[in-house]
Amino acid sequence: MPGNTFGELFRVTTAGVSHGPGYLLVVDGCPAGLPLSVDDLLPDLRRRRPGQSKIVTQRQEEDLPEIYSGVFEGKTDGTSIGILFRNTDQRSHDYGDIKDKYRPGHADFTFDQKYGFRDYRGGGRSSARETVCRVAAGAIAKKLLAQQGVRVLGYVTQVGHIQAPIGDPTAVTLEQVEQNDVRCPDPAKAAEMIALIEQVRKERDSIGGICEMVAVGVPPGLGEPVFDKLKADLAKAMLSLPAVTAFEYGAGFAAARMRGSENNDLFVPAPGGPKTETNRHGGMLGGISSGMPIVCRVAIKPTSSLPQPQKTVDRNGEATEIVTKGRHDPCLLPRFVPMGEAMFAIVLADHWLRQRAQRM
Amino acid sequence: MPGNTFGELFRVTTAGVSHGPGYLLVVDGCPAGLPLSVDDLLPDLRRRRPGQSKIVTQRQEEDLPEIYSGVFEGKTDGTSIGILFRNTDQRSHDYGDIKDKYRPGHADFTFDQKYGFRDYRGGGRSSARETVCRVAAGAIAKKLLAQQGVRVLGYVTQVGHIQAPIGDPTAVTLEQVEQNDVRCPDPAKAAEMIALIEQVRKERDSIGGICEMVAVGVPPGLGEPVFDKLKADLAKAMLSLPAVTAFEYGAGFAAARMRGSENNDLFVPAPGGPKTETNRHGGMLGGISSGMPIVCRVAIKPTSSLPQPQKTVDRNGEATEIVTKGRHDPCLLPRFVPMGEAMFAIVLADHWLRQRAQRM
Amino acid sequence: MPGNTFGELFRVTTAGVSHGPGYLLVVDGCPAGLPLSVDDLLPDLRRRRPGQSKIVTQRQEEDLPEIYSGVFEGKTDGTSIGILFRNTDQRSHDYGDIKDKYRPGHADFTFDQKYGFRDYRGGGRSSARETVCRVAAGAIAKKLLAQQGVRVLGYVTQVGHIQAPIGDPTAVTLEQVEQNDVRCPDPAKAAEMIALIEQVRKERDSIGGICEMVAVGVPPGLGEPVFDKLKADLAKAMLSLPAVTAFEYGAGFAAARMRGSENNDLFVPAPGGPKTETNRHGGMLGGISSGMPIVCRVAIKPTSSLPQPQKTVDRNGEATEIVTKGRHDPCLLPRFVPMGEAMFAIVLADHWLRQRAQRM
Amino acid sequence: MPGNTFGELFRVTTAGVSHGPGYLLVVDGCPAGLPLSVDDLLPDLRRRRPGQSKIVTQRQEEDLPEIYSGVFEGKTDGTSIGILFRNTDQRSHDYGDIKDKYRPGHADFTFDQKYGFRDYRGGGRSSARETVCRVAAGAIAKKLLAQQGVRVLGYVTQVGHIQAPIGDPTAVTLEQVEQNDVRCPDPAKAAEMIALIEQVRKERDSIGGICEMVAVGVPPGLGEPVFDKLKADLAKAMLSLPAVTAFEYGAGFAAARMRGSENNDLFVPAPGGPKTETNRHGGMLGGISSGMPIVCRVAIKPTSSLPQPQKTVDRNGEATEIVTKGRHDPCLLPRFVPMGEAMFAIVLADHWLRQRAQRM
Repeated sequence: MPGNTFGELFRVTTAGVSHGPGYLLVVDGCPAGLPLSVDDLLPDLRRRRPGQSKIVTQRQEEDLPEIYSGVFEGKTDGTSIGILFRNTDQRSHDYGDIKDKYRPGHADFTFDQKYGFRDYRGGGRSSARETVCRVAAGAIAKKLLAQQGVRVLGYVTQVGHIQAPIGDPTAVTLEQVEQNDVRCPDPAKAAEMIALIEQVRKERDSIGGICEMVAVGVPPGLGEPVFDKLKADLAKAMLSLPAVTAFEYGAGFAAARMRGSENNDLFVPAPGGPKTETNRHGGMLGGISSGMPIVCRVAIKPTSSLPQPQKTVDRNGEATEIVTKGRHDPCLLPRFVPMGEAMFAIVLADHWLRQRAQRM
Repeated sequence: MPGNTFGELFRVTTAGVSHGPGYLLVVDGCPAGLPLSVDDLLPDLRRRRPGQSKIVTQRQEEDLPEIYSGVFEGKTDGTSIGILFRNTDQRSHDYGDIKDKYRPGHADFTFDQKYGFRDYRGGGRSSARETVCRVAAGAIAKKLLAQQGVRVLGYVTQVGHIQAPIGDPTAVTLEQVEQNDVRCPDPAKAAEMIALIEQVRKERDSIGGICEMVAVGVPPGLGEPVFDKLKADLAKAMLSLPAVTAFEYGAGFAAARMRGSENNDLFVPAPGGPKTETNRHGGMLGGISSGMPIVCRVAIKPTSSLPQPQKTVDRNGEATEIVTKGRHDPCLLPRFVPMGEAMFAIVLADHWLRQRAQRM
Repeated sequence: MPGNTFGELFRVTTAGVSHGPGYLLVVDGCPAGLPLSVDDLLPDLRRRRPGQSKIVTQRQEEDLPEIYSGVFEGKTDGTSIGILFRNTDQRSHDYGDIKDKYRPGHADFTFDQKYGFRDYRGGGRSSARETVCRVAAGAIAKKLLAQQGVRVLGYVTQVGHIQAPIGDPTAVTLEQVEQNDVRCPDPAKAAEMIALIEQVRKERDSIGGICEMVAVGVPPGLGEPVFDKLKADLAKAMLSLPAVTAFEYGAGFAAARMRGSENNDLFVPAPGGPKTETNRHGGMLGGISSGMPIVCRVAIKPTSSLPQPQKTVDRNGEATEIVTKGRHDPCLLPRFVPMGEAMFAIVLADHWLRQRAQRM
Repeated sequence: MPGNTFGELFRVTTAGVSHGPGYLLVVDGCPAGLPLSVDDLLPDLRRRRPGQSKIVTQRQEEDLPEIYSGVFEGKTDGTSIGILFRNTDQRSHDYGDIKDKYRPGHADFTFDQKYGFRDYRGGGRSSARETVCRVAAGAIAKKLLAQQGVRVLGYVTQVGHIQAPIGDPTAVTLEQVEQNDVRCPDPAKAAEMIALIEQVRKERDSIGGICEMVAVGVPPGLGEPVFDKLKADLAKAMLSLPAVTAFEYGAGFAAARMRGSENNDLFVPAPGGPKTETNRHGGMLGGISSGMPIVCRVAIKPTSSLPQPQKTVDRNGEATEIVTKGRHDPCLLPRFVPMGEAMFAIVLADHWLRQRAQRM
């Protein structure tokens, strides 16, 4: 089975490359009757867009989605939603170095090994520009979830060595996240992060970081034993995004150091049904949502494209050097936030539909 | 789509519960002509089995697989491989506490929320005993991979706060791993880990840890852009295992602190094609195998079942206490190793078949 | 994707061969709370069983299903239902002719071409004994459907040149079908059919026929545009059964001769919503159920195994003769009826669950 | 799983409606390295196009595909192939009757029942205009197959009561098929068919027919036991097309009247491996290709849209009359030929890739 489709019942298929005429997105399985228009897609597309602030790439991309089908008279009609993104700038560039040399950290070499050749125009299919489709699909998923009272939010908690302390993930608001360019809800730490990003950019380098995401209002019962656990599908969704190198939920790696008596969240009576006193389980037990907030974190590696010379080899296998031209994000974190939220929402929408199918 | 199947072309389906008559495993898609017998399955099943050492649970389970189909005259015949595991001990127990109370950290509550009721006999479908099927399927995948020169190995690198330094993951041998009960290739650290596990057991507690896994000999080109990246399917595979709370590959979370100039692995000429000087990319670039060793790590939470009183609620939502009876692993790590290896091998076998389909 | 799984949300996986230890069946996706026991499976298994009358094969097979999982305290628990069938007679036979010669009309040659070798013991995986799993899965689907008021019934309308006129398919009862050995609801024609089958058996030959199936009570709206139309999934289900060579629904092939003004079913007002005056559309418009009875027919070829010499070639490609030993059905139709009903019910259960997922 | 995707390894996804801005097509899984350009798609698109002759609808649709991705420097690059079709005429029409009345034979009523409302502009998602995507995907599949020596051809054998005798399906040529407007390779019968179609058009009526399709050069071994038999996937593919009401392969329904001694095809020695003397099995045994030509037939119902008054009901459930305006095909057969060939080719390409995955 080829890999350009994600999800079982809320199903996303994409095609397109960074330097071709554009991207095609098909969202299949969205129930009929959901109010939907281009305006629902634009806010997250703008958060993902290059050029939105000083600390992200200054490339200009217009990401105007054209809805081709699946929406009729302002509501989804139950059929497959087709969305088109045209690439505005398809001029022929001098790809020079990229064409014949393997960029370190990129998929140039592995695409070549896999397919026998590759579209060398700026990444081709491996370009992160493909996430424009995911963010649009995620916006649809978010709207579907919102009608069930589910809200998904992401924010940056770490850039390089700078960590922002987040007390209660469920207390973070979209406004706090959007109040600064790095999308960290802690204003003081955000300022430090921005300063660090500007510094590494001046040093022709890049920097990694961590994004935390939380979903509130998720009903208990989502997730399918034994393989399609909610935690498993979330992990896949996140690792399917470019540059993501790690995933954890709840206590995550910290659980490795804990004792059971420390890590177990104890059930307590509550109005509306049992809750846990604490949430080290990140809202999932046995891979099924517990009704507590779902909390996960991912690590994003520093941008691989660097405007400084790096050793590499060319397609003939000979040693050479490469300097990546073009404008690249010195830190991927600010623009990652809507991408991570989108995949989170897609997984939740998919499992919400799956759970509906299983009710007698 | 229900969740008891994993993989696209090497496809594993399981059924069974811990206290029923047994487990059914169907492995579909294994090519014809692979030599296979029960003897190929036993070594890993024994590594997974309870009662194998002092530091794991002393429950006795016989895990004798019966091959029902798919193997003819000592070789796979291309049809679905059916394997049966009978549970030897199905006596009716007094499940008392488990029946009406939600065990902290377990899936009791979430199964109840999902399905409306649950098999309360020791976990039912959420029991880790289901992994007996995965380990058998993984043994088949390992044998298939071995014929391509691919080897998968896991080992424990951390128990609680005790970390074993592993220099070169590819230098670790199965013999080193199997030389001690905790499956840590560093004998000194292994001794410390074992002492810690015995201590927490005496204290009626449990402890978490980290398992690292490595695959060598993986050809470049495995992994399907853009959603079914190899890293994505590995993450899902690992998080589908009970008690896994985190996944990382290569530099993983450490990449969050790095600069691009630190993190990028530089290509260098090598006999047989370009290699990278270092392997912070964990053998995957753009989600496709690079030919370098694939290295990943997972965190395992401390066993949730504790032989000490814990606060919880019962099915009526009222506060109560629970003491989990029965013999449980004070640390899941030693028995996790073959489970993690199995899922790793299943993902690699699946993607190896997928890559074959795409060759002209 | 290997081929031993059927269905998306009501999902059936099978393994097993005719002369191995038995068959494994996993039914995944059945909602929790459906009352289910072995007694629900036995009636249809008995209708499928060899040896039930003079006009079917006299082989004796006990088809006692053992439910391994998915049912707890008399109800489905939402997890995968595992069912085991043991083959009672696994004695080593002298397969002689079958081993080295290709039986005409059988899959011997094509299995050999596909897999490089084959289980030559009486058909191996291509044996129609595999349908024991389908009939059991179908019985579960039927029970699920019955709770929604849906009933599925099949019957024989033709054996060789003898055709039984069926006025109104929805008026046929299970009692009428089961009142004679050939499962034709027209007693006079049934007698003729039985006489013909006995005659061809004496002549060491076999005979084909047609089975018609009808589902009543199917709610409108089942079927997924544009590829997973209900008619498309029914066609696949039927053609996946051994010996089926043709499928039609409603007017079927007769529509080729009709004019639109003859073929169109006109809508008329009715209590509970519009109906059509006639049902040439066989209960499906645009591949979606209309609420009218779903009616389809399949052709079954005459049994390929013949107790008379037939020309063929051996595995060395040399001309030879073969006489198929063993007891074979001279006509597959009587035992086909429960198989066809089972696949019909599985498709309807699957689409019923799919339609539930899509409701807001 | 929603229904807008077809195929496992050669995977087609479509979106779009007849009166929206256009159609999106994603073909995923085509191997890298296949020469491909728009010119490869045009011939079959022109065969499918309205307005090509007097006996098909005179609507004018430009079907110019724009390849968005998956092709680089004239060859497929292994990534998902995105193709866009713009609808040229999206003017707002007066849909009057269609909007509030259910057209007999159409999906108006069932879409309404399924989704709660529908795109009433000329069929919306149920419009046969969606097949423009299938024909383009089929052209890619045909090119992939041609490189393996596989050729797929369809032709009309029956319109109404007029049947064309086809001696040897493998002797029919594309030139013979394309030499007349009805795509029947028998010129005399073609003339009769054309006269009949013109007559029914003048009588404001429509007429059904039969299309036969043949694939030559298919290697033995394609088809996956036990559910994804080649015959099963072909049946699904054909029944997924609009207006198809029946499918048969080889002897098909005629097998119902046959004895085994008549129907069995006997194996005979031949250069290059055993063949059968006859081909009543239509090139598939046990659902696996035998190397003999694959032959199947489908019935197409008469066009449901009629320019004469028909009884129906409106959305309020009240009796009314409807006259379908617009230009409709009086007989769907001529334009069906490329659609049937396309689905045939897609199934063969899919199973060819699946078989490759299973080779050690």
